[in-house]
This record gives sequence, C-alpha cells and structure tokens, in this order.
Amino acid sequence: MRIGIIGVGAVGGYYGALLVQNGFDVHFLFKSDFEHVRANGLLVESKNGDFALDAVNAYVSSEDMPKCDVIIVALKTIHNNLLKSILPNTIKKNGIIVALQNGLGIEKDFSEIVPSATIIGGLCFLCSNKIGPGHIRHLDYGSIRLGQYQEGDQAAGVTEELKKIADIFLKAAIPIHLAENLGKARWEKLVWNMGFNGSAVILNATTEQMIKHKSSRSMVNEIMREVIRGARACGYDIEDNFAEIMLNATQQMVDYSPSMKLDYDAGRPLEIENIYWRPIQAAEKKGYDMQKSTVLAYQLDFLDRLNKNNI
Amino acid sequence: MRIGIIGVGAVGGYYGALLVQNGFDVHFLFKSDFEHVRANGLLVESKNGDFALDAVNAYVSSEDMPKCDVIIVALKTIHNNLLKSILPNTIKKNGIIVALQNGLGIEKDFSEIVPSATIIGGLCFLCSNKIGPGHIRHLDYGSIRLGQYQEGDQAAGVTEELKKIADIFLKAAIPIHLAENLGKARWEKLVWNMGFNGSAVILNATTEQMIKHKSSRSMVNEIMREVIRGARACGYDIEDNFAEIMLNATQQMVDYSPSMKLDYDAGRPLEIENIYWRPIQAAEKKGYDMQKSTVLAYQLDFLDRLNKNNI
Repeated sequence: MRIGIIGVGAVGGYYGALLVQNGFDVHFLFKSDFEHVRANGLLVESKNGDFALDAVNAYVSSEDMPKCDVIIVALKTIHNNLLKSILPNTIKKNGIIVALQNGLGIEKDFSEIVPSATIIGGLCFLCSNKIGPGHIRHLDYGSIRLGQYQEGDQAAGVTEELKKIADIFLKAAIPIHLAENLGKARWEKLVWNMGFNGSAVILNATTEQMIKHKSSRSMVNEIMREVIRGARACGYDIEDNFAEIMLNATQQMVDYSPSMKLDYDAGRPLEIENIYWRPIQAAEKKGYDMQKSTVLAYQLDFLDRLNKNNI
Repeated sequence: MRIGIIGVGAVGGYYGALLVQNGFDVHFLFKSDFEHVRANGLLVESKNGDFALDAVNAYVSSEDMPKCDVIIVALKTIHNNLLKSILPNTIKKNGIIVALQNGLGIEKDFSEIVPSATIIGGLCFLCSNKIGPGHIRHLDYGSIRLGQYQEGDQAAGVTEELKKIADIFLKAAIPIHLAENLGKARWEKLVWNMGFNGSAVILNATTEQMIKHKSSRSMVNEIMREVIRGARACGYDIEDNFAEIMLNATQQMVDYSPSMKLDYDAGRPLEIENIYWRPIQAAEKKGYDMQKSTVLAYQLDFLDRLNKNNI
C-alpha cells in the first residue's frame, strides 16, 4: 500500500515521518522545503523521542508522484485550491483521501474533485510546530479523531475504509478515536476552534490569558455556546455544558497559542473561511444567525488582510 | 453668572478657554496639570485662531472653588466616581449641570448626586486633543448638541434652562444644536461611537482603514444597525439608513482616530462602561440582546485590563 502526504508542515511532517518510521511506503508532496528535504531528509523532535529520516520520497510536483492508495491532505485549508490538480494526479481509482484539516466543507469539496474516492476527515489533537525546513517539533498530544464523509454530512458509521485508515495510524502508534458522525465531530472541534483561535489573534493573547480574565472567558464561553446552537441548527446535538467542559479542559492544558495565532504571528494567511465563514453560512442556511462569531470573522478578515499588507 | 469646568482636557480645556476669552467668569477644577496651568495659564491652538490665557481661575480641590451657577462636567466618564464629592461642593442651589460626556446613564447618576439641579447633556462633535499640560490643539469641528434630562429619559423639550445654556455657548461662538429628546440624541451619537470607537481599538485602525476594507465596513455597519435596534427597543425611533448615513459622513471626514483609540494608545483607561455596557444593559432590559456589541465590549474589557497591566 502506498501513502501520499500532501503538505509537509507541523501536521503532515509529523504524522508522515511516523508512518515512514513504522515501515510504510510514504511519498511526500512539498509546497516548500523540497530542496532542503531532498538533500537532508526530515528531522522530528518529539517528547516521545527524537528521530531523523535521512532520505524520504520527496516531490515538488504532483505529476511526478506515483499514484497512491491513500492520500493524506495536511495542507492549511487556505491552500486547498491547489488540490484540484493534485488529487486527481496522485490518487488511485477508488482510493481513500484523509483530510487532516480544521473547519467545515472540506470533504464535500474533495468529493467534488474526486467523486470515486472515499473521503475521511481527521481532527488532530496535536501540539506541533514546524520550526525550520523539514524540521518538526512535536510538543504534546497527537491523537486523531477519524470519521467518514457521506453526502449531505449524514452519519456514515464505522466503515471498512475507516477501520483501514485507523489501522494504518495505529501501526505507527498514533492514538485514534473513531467518530460515527463526522459532521458532529467537526462541529465539536469547532466549539474550541471558533472560541479560541480567532480570539487569540484579535486579543493577541494565549489560552491562559483568555481564561484568566473574566471578560475574555465570558466571551469565549458565549462564542462556544453559539457554536453549539449552530451545530444544533445543523442537526448535530451537542450538550450546552460542552462549552464549560472545553474551557475547563483548556484551563488544565499548558499555556497555548492556537494555530491561527501562530499563523498570524508568522505573517501567514488565516484559515478564516473554513473555521468561521463556512459554519456561519451552514447555520444561516438552517435559519440560525451566529452573530457573535460573525463579528470575530469580520475582525479576522480585516486583520488577515492588513497582515498580508493588502489593505 | 459663574461657570465651573470640571476636567480640563481636550473638551473642558477647549470650551472653557473659549468661554473665558468671551468674558465669562470661569473656574477650572483640575485633575492634573494644576501646577503648570496656575503658573503658565492655558494655551489653545485652533484652526479658528490660536490664543493664550495667561492666568485662569484654577483649583485642585473642589472645596476651594466658589459655588457656581453652571457646572460643566468634561471629565472622561471613567472618573465620574469623583463627582460624588465635587458636584455638591461646587454647584449653587438650583444650579445647572452640563455633562459634556459620551454614553448612557450619565444624567441619571448626576441627578442622584444633586437632586435639585437641572441636568443637561451635551454631545460634542469636536476634534481636539490635549497635547501637553494646559495645551489644547483644536483640529476641527466643535459643535455641541444639547438636550435636557428628564427622569426616565423622557423627552424634555426645549426648556428655559436649555436655552440659557445654549446662549452661553453661542456667546462664545460655539455652534449649538438643541435636542428635544436627549435620550434619542444620546443613542444617535452611540450609533457612531459603538460602531467606530471600540473597533478602532480592537483592530488598531483609523476610521479610513475601517471604511476602506469590506469586512470592517460591514462589521461597523452591522454594529450600527444593532445600536439602532437597541435604541428602538428603548423607545427611540432611529431610521435604519442612519447607519449608512453615518458611514458615508465618516468617509467624507478626514482620517480620524476615535477618542477611545487615543485613550488606549496613551495607556489611559477606556470609557467602556458608559459607551458599551450601559446601552447593552438598557436594551437587554427591554428584551433586546445586543450580541455583536457585547463581543466588542468583552474584547475592550480584556484589552483595557491588559493595557493597565492588571491582567
């Protein structure tokens, strides 16, 4: 079985290297760092043990890659426009695409690009950064919640394809949880992401600072409860106290800069479309107006534009 | 007739100096700059002509001030707690208090401190900064919209007391507009203030930047429309297109940093209570939830706290 990794950053570099280390035939498509990695390989520093891969199968063009049984997409969603050519070039007929990305609407987009493929969504609970070309620092956690996409975002249950993908990751000692309902799993992850990611950028603050101060904690809590109501409008029943559970869990975590804040501080574009606008639009279609999240999304659009010097 | 000015910054310094220049008996109570002004007087640079007042009646304690017929309060509202002792010390029986301040709930607070006083609210359309001790720079505009307070925020109409205060300002060539309904006038000013003031702080942006970019313009527009709905919930009928009128008027203005942003950049505390929380609470009491403004208020509370190094 051949596995392709599209995007070799904090997520794709970390999981891909673990798969190589555990004997899988892995092929990496680079957006950047290709020259460096072809010459030097990949280096992973991890709390579970550092390791280096001196040589990996590295490509800069999807046309040069062999067709794969499984394609793992680990790009930031802002680059998903590239997948229109990449996915058809790299996946075998009836292959499986695994989207290790945050936000809504991803699997639907993929299924339109490759209608014959099985699409699986993966939500990573991973604290990892790319600190240099081909150089990944894994800080904490690492589990993936996997669920299979079905048209209309209906619950697909635990399928054979889902178990097959879970087995691959489990053989590389990556903790896996299976979600019978991918749509619900995505909204559950959005509760945290919409609460903390944008707020961290707008307030220039870490999770600890936001939880510590009464106003920001109230704001994050109210955003989270709005996301829960948005999920319900879309047919996914998440309990109200899930917001308080997320806040308390975050309070126990090490002080943390959410990925969107890391992107912003590094001058990279922000994943506003899939993490904010798509859920807002999905809820709006069902008659629920996510007013508070909309304010954050507008603010993020402005800051993102300014950050890219386009204003 | 004796006039007292409480707070000698960009507003109190400018209008007070104009009153002195036009022959009124004016007494200034300082929060800061007392020593400097007692020694050097007041200096006003203005597009209408610069002028200096070599000596003014300056006080540092309200106990030293003579009782006045008219007290003009030009403090930032964050210092209004000081007025509990200042107002009773400085106003004659049946005197008139003029609040040149932004936000809601001000006149009610004053009427509780001095029940016998007539309370008038004034909304300044003034572009002015204090650029040094006793040194005011008047950039543009300068009119005041005056309205009389009546218990329960009912329309008080144009009273004799209101005309008397208008005459004082008019004699100093200060443009005056009279509002029959102070409550409505305050909400109309809030449409601009709640739209632009907080957003300028949160986005670190000027009016021009916010109007230029689609997302921030949409956000300010939606906040303004929410304020209009809040006003309506409180019984003040403001037309929907007032938001678009305000935005277009601002687009014609010179690029501008709202007062709250100037306060923030200078490390001064922000007028969040009267400009955001009081209107939000007033609307909430009438059953309308100003969700978008609430997000801004929470964000401002956080930034204000951090700015004061209290977090």
